[in-house]
Amino acid sequence: MRPKVVLFGDSITRESFSKGGWGAALAHHFSRTADVVLRGYNGYNTRWALKGANRAMHGTCADGEHPLVLTVFFGANDASLPDRSSGFQHVPLDEYQSNLRSIISFFKERWPTTKFLLITPPPIDEDGRRRNPFGGNLSGLSERTNTCTGAYARACIAVATEYNIPVIDIWSKMQQFSGWEKSFLCDGLHFTASGNGILFEEVVAKFKEMGVSIDNLPIDLPLFDKLDSYDPLKVAFAS
Amino acid sequence: MRPKVVLFGDSITRESFSKGGWGAALAHHFSRTADVVLRGYNGYNTRWALKGANRAMHGTCADGEHPLVLTVFFGANDASLPDRSSGFQHVPLDEYQSNLRSIISFFKERWPTTKFLLITPPPIDEDGRRRNPFGGNLSGLSERTNTCTGAYARACIAVATEYNIPVIDIWSKMQQFSGWEKSFLCDGLHFTASGNGILFEEVVAKFKEMGVSIDNLPIDLPLFDKLDSYDPLKVAFAS
Repeated sequence: MRPKVVLFGDSITRESFSKGGWGAALAHHFSRTADVVLRGYNGYNTRWALKGANRAMHGTCADGEHPLVLTVFFGANDASLPDRSSGFQHVPLDEYQSNLRSIISFFKERWPTTKFLLITPPPIDEDGRRRNPFGGNLSGLSERTNTCTGAYARACIAVATEYNIPVIDIWSKMQQFSGWEKSFLCDGLHFTASGNGILFEEVVAKFKEMGVSIDNLPIDLPLFDKLDSYDPLKVAFAS
Repeated sequence: MRPKVVLFGDSITRESFSKGGWGAALAHHFSRTADVVLRGYNGYNTRWALKGANRAMHGTCADGEHPLVLTVFFGANDASLPDRSSGFQHVPLDEYQSNLRSIISFFKERWPTTKFLLITPPPIDEDGRRRNPFGGNLSGLSERTNTCTGAYARACIAVATEYNIPVIDIWSKMQQFSGWEKSFLCDGLHFTASGNGILFEEVVAKFKEMGVSIDNLPIDLPLFDKLDSYDPLKVAFAS
Protein backbone atom coordinates (compact mmCIF):
# COMPACT_ATOMS: atom_id res chain seq x y z
CA MET A 1 0.00 0.00 0.00
CA ARG A 2 1.35 3.41 -0.95
CA PRO A 3 2.48 5.23 2.20
CA LYS A 4 1.18 8.62 3.25
CA VAL A 5 2.90 11.85 4.22
CA VAL A 6 0.46 14.00 6.20
CA LEU A 7 1.06 17.75 6.47
CA PHE A 8 -0.65 19.19 9.56
CA GLY A 9 -0.35 22.90 10.08
CA ASP A 10 -1.77 26.40 9.70
CA SER A 11 -2.10 28.63 6.63
CA ILE A 12 1.55 28.08 5.66
CA THR A 13 0.63 24.42 5.26
CA ARG A 14 -2.74 25.14 3.68
CA GLU A 15 -1.13 27.45 1.12
CA SER A 16 1.47 24.80 0.36
CA PHE A 17 -0.48 23.57 -2.68
CA SER A 18 -0.77 26.99 -4.26
CA LYS A 19 1.46 27.66 -7.28
CA GLY A 20 5.04 26.68 -6.47
CA GLY A 21 4.08 25.61 -2.95
CA TRP A 22 6.23 23.31 -0.83
CA GLY A 23 3.44 20.74 -0.32
CA ALA A 24 2.66 20.39 -4.02
CA ALA A 25 6.40 20.10 -4.69
CA LEU A 26 6.55 17.24 -2.18
CA ALA A 27 3.55 15.55 -3.84
CA HIS A 28 5.33 15.87 -7.19
CA HIS A 29 8.62 14.62 -5.77
CA PHE A 30 6.95 11.53 -4.25
CA SER A 31 4.42 11.15 -7.08
CA ARG A 32 5.06 7.45 -7.73
CA THR A 33 5.93 6.45 -4.17
CA ALA A 34 3.85 8.24 -1.49
CA ASP A 35 0.65 10.26 -1.14
CA VAL A 36 0.94 13.71 0.36
CA VAL A 37 -2.17 14.53 2.38
CA LEU A 38 -2.95 18.18 3.09
CA ARG A 39 -4.31 19.15 6.49
CA GLY A 40 -3.73 22.90 6.63
CA TYR A 41 -5.99 25.15 8.70
CA ASN A 42 -5.69 28.89 8.15
CA GLY A 43 -5.32 30.91 11.28
CA TYR A 44 -5.10 27.93 13.61
CA ASN A 45 -2.90 27.97 16.66
CA THR A 46 -1.91 24.89 18.66
CA ARG A 47 -4.88 25.30 21.00
CA TRP A 48 -7.37 24.82 18.17
CA ALA A 49 -5.16 22.29 16.36
CA LEU A 50 -5.08 20.12 19.47
CA LYS A 51 -8.86 20.32 19.83
CA GLY A 52 -9.36 19.53 16.16
CA ALA A 53 -6.59 16.94 15.65
CA ASN A 54 -8.85 13.92 15.81
CA ARG A 55 -11.45 15.21 13.42
CA ALA A 56 -8.83 16.69 11.09
CA MET A 57 -7.38 13.23 10.50
CA HIS A 58 -10.66 11.55 9.54
CA GLY A 59 -10.12 9.96 6.17
CA THR A 60 -6.35 10.27 6.09
CA CYS A 61 -5.71 6.58 6.79
CA ALA A 62 -7.53 3.27 6.73
CA ASP A 63 -8.06 1.46 10.03
CA GLY A 64 -4.75 0.07 11.18
CA GLU A 65 -2.80 2.13 8.66
CA HIS A 66 -0.29 4.66 9.99
CA PRO A 67 1.14 7.50 7.91
CA LEU A 68 4.79 7.15 7.05
CA VAL A 69 5.45 10.71 8.20
CA LEU A 70 3.47 13.47 9.87
CA THR A 71 4.74 17.04 9.73
CA VAL A 72 3.53 19.33 12.53
CA PHE A 73 3.98 22.98 11.63
CA PHE A 74 2.34 25.43 14.03
CA GLY A 75 3.42 28.48 15.98
CA ALA A 76 3.08 31.39 13.56
CA ASN A 77 -0.38 32.17 14.96
CA ASP A 78 0.38 31.29 18.57
CA ALA A 79 3.10 33.95 18.37
CA SER A 80 0.65 36.75 17.49
CA LEU A 81 1.13 39.45 20.13
CA PRO A 82 -1.68 39.38 22.71
CA ASP A 83 -2.19 43.16 22.69
CA ARG A 84 -2.25 43.69 18.93
CA SER A 85 -4.77 43.10 16.16
CA SER A 86 -4.45 39.30 16.02
CA GLY A 87 -4.38 38.86 19.79
CA PHE A 88 -7.35 36.53 19.34
CA GLN A 89 -4.95 33.91 17.94
CA HIS A 90 -2.28 34.34 20.62
CA VAL A 91 -1.31 31.37 22.75
CA PRO A 92 1.15 31.93 25.63
CA LEU A 93 4.58 30.39 25.11
CA ASP A 94 4.29 27.77 27.84
CA GLU A 95 0.86 26.70 26.60
CA TYR A 96 2.27 26.50 23.03
CA GLN A 97 4.91 24.07 24.26
CA SER A 98 2.42 22.11 26.26
CA ASN A 99 0.03 21.94 23.28
CA LEU A 100 2.83 20.74 20.99
CA ARG A 101 3.61 17.99 23.51
CA SER A 102 -0.05 17.01 23.63
CA ILE A 103 -0.33 16.97 19.83
CA ILE A 104 2.72 14.72 19.57
CA SER A 105 1.49 12.44 22.34
CA PHE A 106 -1.92 12.19 20.71
CA PHE A 107 -0.43 11.11 17.38
CA LYS A 108 2.21 8.84 18.93
CA GLU A 109 -0.54 6.91 20.63
CA ARG A 110 -2.74 6.85 17.53
CA TRP A 111 0.05 6.08 15.04
CA PRO A 112 2.94 4.46 16.93
CA THR A 113 4.95 3.62 13.79
CA THR A 114 4.69 7.08 12.22
CA LYS A 115 7.79 9.28 11.97
CA PHE A 116 7.29 12.86 13.10
CA LEU A 117 8.84 16.05 11.82
CA LEU A 118 8.36 19.34 13.63
CA ILE A 119 8.78 22.63 11.78
CA THR A 120 9.31 25.89 13.64
CA PRO A 121 7.36 29.00 12.67
CA PRO A 122 9.18 30.99 9.98
CA PRO A 123 10.70 34.41 10.65
CA ILE A 124 8.56 37.54 10.52
CA ASP A 125 9.26 40.59 8.38
CA GLU A 126 7.50 43.28 10.39
CA ASP A 127 7.69 45.77 7.54
CA GLY A 128 5.96 43.22 5.29
CA ARG A 129 3.22 42.76 7.90
CA ARG A 130 2.65 46.50 8.18
CA ARG A 131 2.38 46.79 4.40
CA ASN A 132 -0.06 43.85 4.23
CA PRO A 133 -2.30 44.32 7.24
CA PHE A 134 -4.59 41.38 7.91
CA GLY A 135 -8.32 41.87 8.35
CA GLY A 136 -9.20 45.00 10.22
CA ASN A 137 -5.70 45.91 11.36
CA LEU A 138 -5.56 49.67 10.90
CA SER A 139 -3.17 50.21 13.80
CA GLY A 140 -0.05 50.51 11.64
CA LEU A 141 1.59 47.99 13.99
CA SER A 142 2.66 44.50 12.96
CA GLU A 143 0.59 41.95 14.86
CA ARG A 144 3.69 39.73 15.12
CA THR A 145 7.37 40.46 15.73
CA ASN A 146 10.34 38.43 14.63
CA THR A 147 11.78 38.44 18.14
CA CYS A 148 8.65 37.00 19.68
CA THR A 149 8.26 34.38 16.93
CA GLY A 150 11.91 33.43 17.51
CA ALA A 151 11.04 32.48 21.09
CA TYR A 152 8.28 30.17 19.76
CA ALA A 153 10.75 28.67 17.28
CA ARG A 154 13.17 27.89 20.12
CA ALA A 155 10.32 26.44 22.18
CA CYS A 156 9.41 24.17 19.27
CA ILE A 157 13.02 22.99 18.98
CA ALA A 158 13.08 22.28 22.71
CA VAL A 159 10.01 20.04 22.41
CA ALA A 160 11.57 18.23 19.45
CA THR A 161 14.72 17.63 21.49
CA GLU A 162 12.70 16.45 24.47
CA TYR A 163 10.86 13.88 22.31
CA ASN A 164 13.88 13.08 20.13
CA ILE A 165 11.95 14.15 17.04
CA PRO A 166 13.60 15.72 13.98
CA VAL A 167 12.93 19.43 13.54
CA ILE A 168 13.44 22.01 10.81
CA ASP A 169 14.39 25.40 12.23
CA ILE A 170 13.05 27.40 9.30
CA TRP A 171 13.10 30.53 11.47
CA SER A 172 16.91 30.42 11.61
CA LYS A 173 17.47 28.86 8.20
CA MET A 174 15.74 31.64 6.29
CA GLN A 175 17.58 34.33 8.20
CA GLN A 176 20.92 32.94 7.03
CA PHE A 177 20.22 34.54 3.63
CA SER A 178 20.55 38.27 3.17
CA GLY A 179 17.32 39.80 1.91
CA TRP A 180 15.27 36.95 3.41
CA GLU A 181 12.54 39.43 4.39
CA LYS A 182 11.35 40.05 0.84
CA SER A 183 12.83 37.13 -1.08
CA PHE A 184 11.27 34.39 1.09
CA LEU A 185 8.16 36.12 2.47
CA CYS A 186 5.44 37.68 0.31
CA ASP A 187 3.61 39.52 3.10
CA GLY A 188 6.04 39.28 5.98
CA LEU A 189 4.68 35.85 7.01
CA HIS A 190 3.65 33.61 4.09
CA PHE A 191 6.08 32.24 1.50
CA THR A 192 7.16 33.42 -1.92
CA ALA A 193 8.17 30.82 -4.53
CA SER A 194 11.75 31.04 -3.19
CA GLY A 195 10.53 30.64 0.38
CA ASN A 196 8.54 27.59 -0.64
CA GLY A 197 11.61 26.27 -2.43
CA ILE A 198 13.85 26.50 0.59
CA LEU A 199 11.36 24.73 2.86
CA PHE A 200 10.79 22.02 0.24
CA GLU A 201 14.54 21.37 0.07
CA GLU A 202 14.81 21.28 3.87
CA VAL A 203 11.93 18.82 4.14
CA VAL A 204 13.33 16.50 1.46
CA ALA A 205 16.77 16.57 3.13
CA LYS A 206 15.33 15.94 6.59
CA PHE A 207 13.09 13.14 5.30
CA LYS A 208 16.19 11.54 3.78
CA GLU A 209 17.95 11.63 7.16
CA MET A 210 14.84 9.96 8.57
CA GLY A 211 15.07 7.21 5.94
CA VAL A 212 12.21 8.53 3.82
CA SER A 213 13.44 8.94 0.26
CA ILE A 214 12.39 8.14 -3.29
CA ASP A 215 15.60 6.08 -3.40
CA ASN A 216 14.21 3.51 -0.98
CA LEU A 217 10.44 3.76 -1.35
CA PRO A 218 9.01 1.17 -3.74
CA ILE A 219 6.94 2.27 -6.72
CA ASP A 220 3.52 0.61 -6.97
CA LEU A 221 3.55 -0.13 -10.70
CA PRO A 222 6.48 -0.69 -13.04
CA LEU A 223 8.02 2.15 -15.03
CA PHE A 224 6.65 2.03 -18.56
CA ASP A 225 10.01 1.70 -20.24
CA LYS A 226 10.57 -1.51 -18.27
CA LEU A 227 7.50 -3.09 -19.85
CA ASP A 228 7.17 -5.10 -22.98
CA SER A 229 3.89 -4.18 -24.59
CA TYR A 230 2.40 -7.63 -23.98
CA ASP A 231 4.46 -10.41 -22.54
CA PRO A 232 5.76 -9.49 -19.10
CA LEU A 233 2.46 -8.05 -17.94
CA LYS A 234 1.50 -11.06 -15.88
CA VAL A 235 4.65 -10.69 -13.85
CA ALA A 236 4.87 -6.91 -13.82
CA PHE A 237 1.27 -6.39 -12.80
CA ALA A 238 0.82 -9.31 -10.43
CA SER A 239 -1.07 -7.95 -7.47
CA MET B 1 -14.86 11.84 6.52
CA ARG B 2 -13.22 14.12 3.98
CA PRO B 3 -14.04 12.91 0.47
CA LYS B 4 -11.42 12.02 -2.12
CA VAL B 5 -10.88 13.07 -5.70
CA VAL B 6 -8.66 10.50 -7.42
CA LEU B 7 -6.77 11.46 -10.59
CA PHE B 8 -5.94 8.38 -12.68
CA GLY B 9 -3.96 8.99 -15.82
CA ASP B 10 -0.64 9.06 -17.65
CA SER B 11 2.22 11.58 -17.49
CA ILE B 12 -0.16 14.51 -17.98
CA THR B 13 -1.74 13.46 -14.69
CA ARG B 14 1.55 12.63 -13.04
CA GLU B 15 2.99 16.02 -13.97
CA SER B 16 -0.13 17.70 -12.62
CA PHE B 17 1.56 18.44 -9.27
CA SER B 18 4.57 20.13 -10.82
CA LYS B 19 4.72 23.92 -10.54
CA GLY B 20 1.42 25.41 -11.68
CA GLY B 21 -0.03 21.97 -12.43
CA TRP B 22 -3.77 21.32 -12.70
CA GLY B 23 -3.76 18.61 -10.01
CA ALA B 24 -2.02 20.77 -7.42
CA ALA B 25 -4.41 23.61 -8.30
CA LEU B 26 -7.33 21.25 -7.62
CA ALA B 27 -5.78 20.20 -4.29
CA HIS B 28 -5.43 23.89 -3.39
CA HIS B 29 -8.98 24.69 -4.53
CA PHE B 30 -10.44 21.85 -2.42
CA SER B 31 -7.90 22.25 0.40
CA ARG B 32 -10.45 22.36 3.25
CA THR B 33 -13.05 20.08 1.68
CA ALA B 34 -11.57 17.16 -0.28
CA ASP B 35 -8.31 15.27 -0.71
CA VAL B 36 -6.88 15.06 -4.20
CA VAL B 37 -5.08 11.75 -4.69
CA LEU B 38 -2.52 11.48 -7.47
CA ARG B 39 -2.33 8.29 -9.54
CA GLY B 40 -0.36 9.33 -12.60
CA TYR B 41 1.76 6.84 -14.53
CA ASN B 42 4.16 8.21 -17.14
CA GLY B 43 3.99 6.54 -20.48
CA TYR B 44 1.02 4.37 -19.63
CA ASN B 45 -1.61 3.51 -22.19
CA THR B 46 -5.04 2.03 -21.37
CA ARG B 47 -3.72 -1.52 -21.79
CA TRP B 48 -1.27 -1.10 -18.93
CA ALA B 49 -3.62 1.12 -16.94
CA LEU B 50 -6.30 -1.58 -17.04
CA LYS B 51 -3.82 -4.24 -15.92
CA GLY B 52 -2.54 -1.99 -13.12
CA ALA B 53 -5.82 -0.39 -12.02
CA ASN B 54 -6.32 -2.59 -8.98
CA ARG B 55 -2.83 -2.21 -7.62
CA ALA B 56 -2.72 1.50 -8.45
CA MET B 57 -5.64 2.15 -6.14
CA HIS B 58 -4.19 0.40 -3.08
CA GLY B 59 -4.23 2.91 -0.28
CA THR B 60 -6.51 5.45 -1.92
CA CYS B 61 -9.55 4.56 0.18
CA ALA B 62 -10.44 2.76 3.35
CA ASP B 63 -12.54 -0.40 3.11
CA GLY B 64 -16.06 0.58 2.21
CA GLU B 65 -15.05 4.11 1.29
CA HIS B 66 -15.61 5.27 -2.28
CA PRO B 67 -13.94 8.32 -3.81
CA LEU B 68 -16.25 11.22 -4.50
CA VAL B 69 -14.85 11.54 -8.03
CA LEU B 70 -12.44 9.61 -10.23
CA THR B 71 -10.93 11.27 -13.29
CA VAL B 72 -9.77 8.91 -16.04
CA PHE B 73 -7.39 10.61 -18.43
CA PHE B 74 -5.67 8.28 -20.92
CA GLY B 75 -5.19 8.18 -24.65
CA ALA B 76 -2.17 10.36 -25.37
CA ASN B 77 0.07 7.27 -25.36
CA ASP B 78 -2.42 4.90 -26.97
CA ALA B 79 -2.43 7.35 -29.90
CA SER B 80 1.31 7.01 -30.53
CA LEU B 81 1.68 5.90 -34.16
CA PRO B 82 2.48 2.18 -34.42
CA ASP B 83 5.24 2.66 -37.00
CA ARG B 84 7.10 5.51 -35.32
CA SER B 85 9.47 5.82 -32.40
CA SER B 86 6.90 5.33 -29.61
CA GLY B 87 5.09 2.48 -31.39
CA PHE B 88 5.74 0.46 -28.25
CA GLN B 89 3.02 2.49 -26.48
CA HIS B 90 0.49 2.33 -29.31
CA VAL B 91 -2.88 0.74 -28.65
CA PRO B 92 -5.29 0.31 -31.59
CA LEU B 93 -8.33 2.58 -31.52
CA ASP B 94 -10.89 -0.18 -30.96
CA GLU B 95 -8.81 -1.69 -28.15
CA TYR B 96 -8.48 1.81 -26.61
CA GLN B 97 -12.27 2.10 -26.50
CA SER B 98 -12.66 -1.39 -25.16
CA ASN B 99 -10.01 -0.75 -22.48
CA LEU B 100 -11.74 2.49 -21.43
CA ARG B 101 -15.01 0.56 -21.08
CA SER B 102 -13.25 -2.09 -18.99
CA ILE B 103 -11.59 0.54 -16.77
CA ILE B 104 -14.95 2.22 -16.15
CA SER B 105 -16.68 -1.11 -15.49
CA PHE B 106 -13.93 -2.14 -13.08
CA PHE B 107 -14.32 1.06 -11.05
CA LYS B 108 -18.12 1.14 -11.25
CA GLU B 109 -18.18 -2.29 -9.67
CA ARG B 110 -15.57 -1.41 -7.07
CA TRP B 111 -16.91 2.05 -6.24
CA PRO B 112 -20.60 2.17 -7.19
CA THR B 113 -21.24 5.59 -5.63
CA THR B 114 -18.24 7.31 -7.25
CA LYS B 115 -18.79 9.95 -9.95
CA PHE B 116 -16.62 9.53 -13.04
CA LEU B 117 -15.11 12.15 -15.30
CA LEU B 118 -13.40 11.19 -18.53
CA ILE B 119 -10.84 13.50 -20.12
CA THR B 120 -9.82 13.13 -23.77
CA PRO B 121 -6.18 13.24 -24.77
CA PRO B 122 -5.04 16.82 -25.48
CA PRO B 123 -4.12 17.99 -28.98
CA ILE B 124 -0.66 17.39 -30.40
CA ASP B 125 1.67 20.03 -31.75
CA GLU B 126 3.76 17.97 -34.15
CA ASP B 127 6.35 20.73 -34.53
CA GLY B 128 6.74 20.74 -30.74
CA ARG B 129 7.23 16.98 -30.74
CA ARG B 130 9.89 17.17 -33.44
CA ARG B 131 11.76 19.84 -31.49
CA ASN B 132 11.56 17.79 -28.26
CA PRO B 133 12.15 14.24 -29.38
CA PHE B 134 11.51 11.68 -26.66
CA GLY B 135 14.13 9.06 -25.83
CA GLY B 136 15.98 7.74 -28.83
CA ASN B 137 13.79 9.34 -31.48
CA LEU B 138 16.28 10.57 -34.07
CA SER B 139 13.89 10.06 -37.00
CA GLY B 140 12.87 13.69 -37.27
CA LEU B 141 9.25 12.51 -37.33
CA SER B 142 6.73 13.23 -34.58
CA GLU B 143 5.73 9.98 -32.93
CA ARG B 144 2.15 11.32 -32.64
CA THR B 145 -0.06 13.37 -34.95
CA ASN B 146 -2.90 15.66 -34.01
CA THR B 147 -5.23 14.00 -36.50
CA CYS B 148 -4.68 10.56 -35.04
CA THR B 149 -5.01 11.80 -31.44
CA GLY B 150 -8.26 13.51 -32.47
CA ALA B 151 -9.69 10.11 -33.39
CA TYR B 152 -8.83 8.86 -29.87
CA ALA B 153 -10.44 11.95 -28.37
CA ARG B 154 -13.67 11.23 -30.28
CA ALA B 155 -13.53 7.59 -29.24
CA CYS B 156 -13.21 8.69 -25.60
CA ILE B 157 -16.25 10.97 -25.98
CA ALA B 158 -18.21 8.10 -27.52
CA VAL B 159 -17.48 5.90 -24.50
CA ALA B 160 -18.50 8.71 -22.14
CA THR B 161 -21.78 9.08 -24.05
CA GLU B 162 -22.36 5.33 -24.01
CA TYR B 163 -21.94 5.23 -20.21
CA ASN B 164 -23.61 8.59 -19.59
CA ILE B 165 -20.43 9.89 -17.96
CA PRO B 166 -19.30 13.53 -18.11
CA VAL B 167 -16.32 14.18 -20.34
CA ILE B 168 -13.92 17.05 -20.96
CA ASP B 169 -12.94 17.33 -24.61
CA ILE B 170 -9.64 19.05 -23.95
CA TRP B 171 -8.51 18.13 -27.50
CA SER B 172 -11.17 20.45 -28.98
CA LYS B 173 -11.18 23.00 -26.17
CA MET B 174 -7.51 23.90 -26.51
CA GLN B 175 -7.75 24.22 -30.28
CA GLN B 176 -10.39 26.93 -29.92
CA PHE B 177 -7.59 29.33 -28.96
CA SER B 178 -5.21 30.64 -31.60
CA GLY B 179 -1.60 29.84 -30.78
CA TRP B 180 -2.66 26.81 -28.69
CA GLU B 181 0.33 24.85 -30.00
CA LYS B 182 2.91 26.84 -28.06
CA SER B 183 0.83 28.59 -25.41
CA PHE B 184 -0.75 25.43 -23.95
CA LEU B 185 1.88 22.77 -24.78
CA CYS B 186 5.51 22.94 -23.68
CA ASP B 187 6.80 20.10 -25.86
CA GLY B 188 3.90 19.46 -28.21
CA LEU B 189 2.21 17.13 -25.70
CA HIS B 190 2.60 18.17 -22.04
CA PHE B 191 1.14 21.36 -20.57
CA THR B 192 2.54 24.81 -19.99
CA ALA B 193 1.22 26.85 -17.04
CA SER B 194 -1.53 28.20 -19.33
CA GLY B 195 -2.39 24.71 -20.51
CA ASN B 196 -2.62 23.55 -16.91
CA GLY B 197 -4.78 26.56 -16.15
CA ILE B 198 -7.31 25.81 -18.85
CA LEU B 199 -7.69 22.17 -17.81
CA PHE B 200 -8.02 23.18 -14.15
CA GLU B 201 -10.85 25.57 -15.04
CA GLU B 202 -12.57 22.93 -17.16
CA VAL B 203 -12.36 20.37 -14.35
CA VAL B 204 -13.71 22.77 -11.72
CA ALA B 205 -16.60 23.75 -14.03
CA LYS B 206 -17.40 20.13 -14.90
CA PHE B 207 -17.22 19.07 -11.25
CA LYS B 208 -19.68 21.85 -10.44
CA GLU B 209 -22.12 20.50 -13.05
CA MET B 210 -21.68 17.11 -11.36
CA GLY B 211 -22.56 18.63 -7.98
CA VAL B 212 -18.99 18.64 -6.68
CA SER B 213 -18.15 22.14 -5.51
CA ILE B 214 -16.58 23.93 -2.58
CA ASP B 215 -19.96 25.62 -2.23
CA ASN B 216 -21.65 22.41 -1.12
CA LEU B 217 -18.84 20.31 0.38
CA PRO B 218 -18.63 20.63 4.15
CA ILE B 219 -15.38 21.74 5.78
CA ASP B 220 -14.10 19.39 8.47
CA LEU B 221 -13.12 22.01 11.05
CA PRO B 222 -14.50 25.49 11.60
CA LEU B 223 -12.94 28.56 9.97
CA PHE B 224 -10.74 30.24 12.54
CA ASP B 225 -12.52 33.57 12.40
CA LYS B 226 -15.70 31.80 13.48
CA LEU B 227 -14.07 30.67 16.72
CA ASP B 228 -13.91 32.34 20.05
CA SER B 229 -10.51 31.64 21.52
CA TYR B 230 -11.94 29.50 24.31
CA ASP B 231 -15.64 29.15 24.78
CA PRO B 232 -17.27 27.65 21.69
CA LEU B 233 -14.63 24.99 21.29
CA LYS B 234 -16.71 22.23 22.77
CA VAL B 235 -19.36 22.81 20.16
CA ALA B 236 -17.13 23.73 17.25
CA PHE B 237 -14.81 20.78 17.71
CA ALA B 238 -17.31 18.14 18.75
CA SER B 239 -16.31 15.00 16.89
